[in-house]
Amino acid sequence: MDLPYTRIKGGVCAPRDFQGSAVSCGIKDPKSDRLDLCLIYSDRECRSAGMFTQNRVKAAPVRISQTHLRSEGVRAIITNSGNANACTGPNGMQDARNMTKEIARLLELKQRDVAVCSTGVIGLPMPMMRIEPQYEALAAGLDPKKGTDVAKAIITSDTHEKEVAISLKIGGKRIRIGGCAKGAGMINPNMATMLCYITTDANLSQTALEAATEEAVENTFNRITIDGDTSTNDSVIVLANGAAENKKIQPESKNCINFRHALQFVMNKLAKAIVRDGERVTKFIKLEVKGARSHNDAKKVAQAVANSSLVKASWNGEDPNWGRIIHAVGYSGASIREEFLNISYGSKLACEGGMQSKTNPEVLRNIVSKPEFSITVDLGLGEGEYQIYASDLSPEYVDFNRSEYAYWKQAKRDGLV
Amino acid sequence: MDLPYTRIKGGVCAPRDFQGSAVSCGIKDPKSDRLDLCLIYSDRECRSAGMFTQNRVKAAPVRISQTHLRSEGVRAIITNSGNANACTGPNGMQDARNMTKEIARLLELKQRDVAVCSTGVIGLPMPMMRIEPQYEALAAGLDPKKGTDVAKAIITSDTHEKEVAISLKIGGKRIRIGGCAKGAGMINPNMATMLCYITTDANLSQTALEAATEEAVENTFNRITIDGDTSTNDSVIVLANGAAENKKIQPESKNCINFRHALQFVMNKLAKAIVRDGERVTKFIKLEVKGARSHNDAKKVAQAVANSSLVKASWNGEDPNWGRIIHAVGYSGASIREEFLNISYGSKLACEGGMQSKTNPEVLRNIVSKPEFSITVDLGLGEGEYQIYASDLSPEYVDFNRSEYAYWKQAKRDGLV
Repeated sequence: MDLPYTRIKGGVCAPRDFQGSAVSCGIKDPKSDRLDLCLIYSDRECRSAGMFTQNRVKAAPVRISQTHLRSEGVRAIITNSGNANACTGPNGMQDARNMTKEIARLLELKQRDVAVCSTGVIGLPMPMMRIEPQYEALAAGLDPKKGTDVAKAIITSDTHEKEVAISLKIGGKRIRIGGCAKGAGMINPNMATMLCYITTDANLSQTALEAATEEAVENTFNRITIDGDTSTNDSVIVLANGAAENKKIQPESKNCINFRHALQFVMNKLAKAIVRDGERVTKFIKLEVKGARSHNDAKKVAQAVANSSLVKASWNGEDPNWGRIIHAVGYSGASIREEFLNISYGSKLACEGGMQSKTNPEVLRNIVSKPEFSITVDLGLGEGEYQIYASDLSPEYVDFNRSEYAYWKQAKRDGLV
Repeated sequence: MDLPYTRIKGGVCAPRDFQGSAVSCGIKDPKSDRLDLCLIYSDRECRSAGMFTQNRVKAAPVRISQTHLRSEGVRAIITNSGNANACTGPNGMQDARNMTKEIARLLELKQRDVAVCSTGVIGLPMPMMRIEPQYEALAAGLDPKKGTDVAKAIITSDTHEKEVAISLKIGGKRIRIGGCAKGAGMINPNMATMLCYITTDANLSQTALEAATEEAVENTFNRITIDGDTSTNDSVIVLANGAAENKKIQPESKNCINFRHALQFVMNKLAKAIVRDGERVTKFIKLEVKGARSHNDAKKVAQAVANSSLVKASWNGEDPNWGRIIHAVGYSGASIREEFLNISYGSKLACEGGMQSKTNPEVLRNIVSKPEFSITVDLGLGEGEYQIYASDLSPEYVDFNRSEYAYWKQAKRDGLV
């Protein structure tokens, strides 16, 4: 799978003529020096594409970035973690606008060339008094070696940064694609509390870039789930600066197909890393649905199974409980015939024709005791297929998410509420 | 609210000419003497109505009972707990049929006069060798004082039995309505892993009974949620034997309206009791959605909020986290305008116009620290309303549901698998 690609270092700054910068301004925790404000910058003009949350409650930075990306020339992205700038009204919009404006001034760009993202707690005013004093240090700190710092600055409850970079030859020229992402909670298709930035030095047409981005997101970030919650801030932004000086990649060309595969490879690595590092996750499950009457039916089944609390609790408990899977299949809304339904853990049938198979449950238990395993639900009705990456639900996830009240207390100490 | 009704004792056997019986046959646990097989019986012919799970995977007893209820004359119900007889194929159908056949023989009824329900683990063959030897004792044990025994025999992971009975005057005659229910996990609208039996000695037409049952279920059991999972076995069965000798209640009459209110009162008590006794539940939340563009939009919002793991975890943590509520509103699929959205805990505004209200978070925290509280989501767009009873999600719920593997082991010891 890796075969056509060379893994390289540098993450989101691995492609030529991209730089990064990150500082700590105490949004996540005023008492720590954790990085929480960062910048990605291309030395050259860029083509850019983005995809954003389908939640109808959209954070201010999502609205601003969507507008700026319509101009197709975004070449810098400022991000803070610790506060989502969501449900913050006109003041929140002004804060997000100011972040792009100040960075544009320092980098001598137009304001619409700068995108902005925020991730963290919803509903609290942005602590701009912590962010504003850091703009100059942020711009001055740009460095092509700081991809990992950027990856660290965007995480919240993730346990570690997530980055990947590859190079490959397209039309005889070597091009690079790099990326970083953050996830943790509120992860569900369409999309997640996730941010993902992808950079590439490939030269490609705007149409080719947009189509490749949309396709890759659909096949990767829209197919992961941790808790079934879609956040207000999900953003994937792709910048392409053409520094590799390859012949411009046109839509539908062979070169374009190669680029799309490579982009999807990078996003897939990041998407899987998000699930594996989900909040208090102990299991990574590849769930394949096939034999559905339609693609849409297969998707319904995959989402119902992957988001059932009872199914997920059984994964946490290493219990090969196909009864809970079949009950989620039954309420998914998809057409089913119980007597045609097969469910397998790994390659072993657990449920055959809607009933318990002959497989020894101890064999199934050994499979679900592993940290990663696959489950196949075959409806036996048609050609519809869908695949999703899912995680278990642990008592520790619930415990971890019981309260964000400490953030309110901090906001009160800061005089923001 | 209780005013027009007199609470009486006796549960499902409180109405005249109903009897109950319950025995322990070791399905739940071969080593304990917990009641797990029971019978409800009317001395007289009955009118009957039922509503069943909308899960497309239906347990064998659901299919049998649906058929028998089409004949409108069901007057006995046999129930076992500990095994759901779901996903058990043709053998499971035969087992369910035999249960009705043997009880019909002993009570000198037609087979179609007997309904059958099962609740418990999915996918394991029924331990008929434990059930069959008990039929005679079950039939011989019928007694009008055994309503509570029946309520005890149907529970699984519930911590206590749930029963209620009332009397009221209709058309100058005193009539009685009694009921019992079980819930615990897999509780979601349409309907739940729930069983509910209602008996009444009112005399009413078949049409009036069916309409009243459908309406009451829609307004009660279809408006509760614990974990968002709809089971394979949900059943509500209502038997009316006319022993009160009131003038027959006809549809749309004033007497019918009184009966409908009373039936809904009984079901509402049982539905709320199910939520309060949900698996490892610590909070009972009345969630009201109003101001939606349509009833359907209000329902979407209520279900999204009540089933969000993150919202429910915050309830468990006593965190007045309206940010998580608004994010669930945003992905519910309903039409919203963020700036018109208000969210209140009790009577206190937490979110006003899509932003944090002026209410001191400590005030909100005091409200959510109580074991029961209400939340109102006002979309500010129209007249659509919906109400749902919901519970928190606790780490202990997940822990409790990690594994049912012990059931497999028992089935193996029993030679069933």
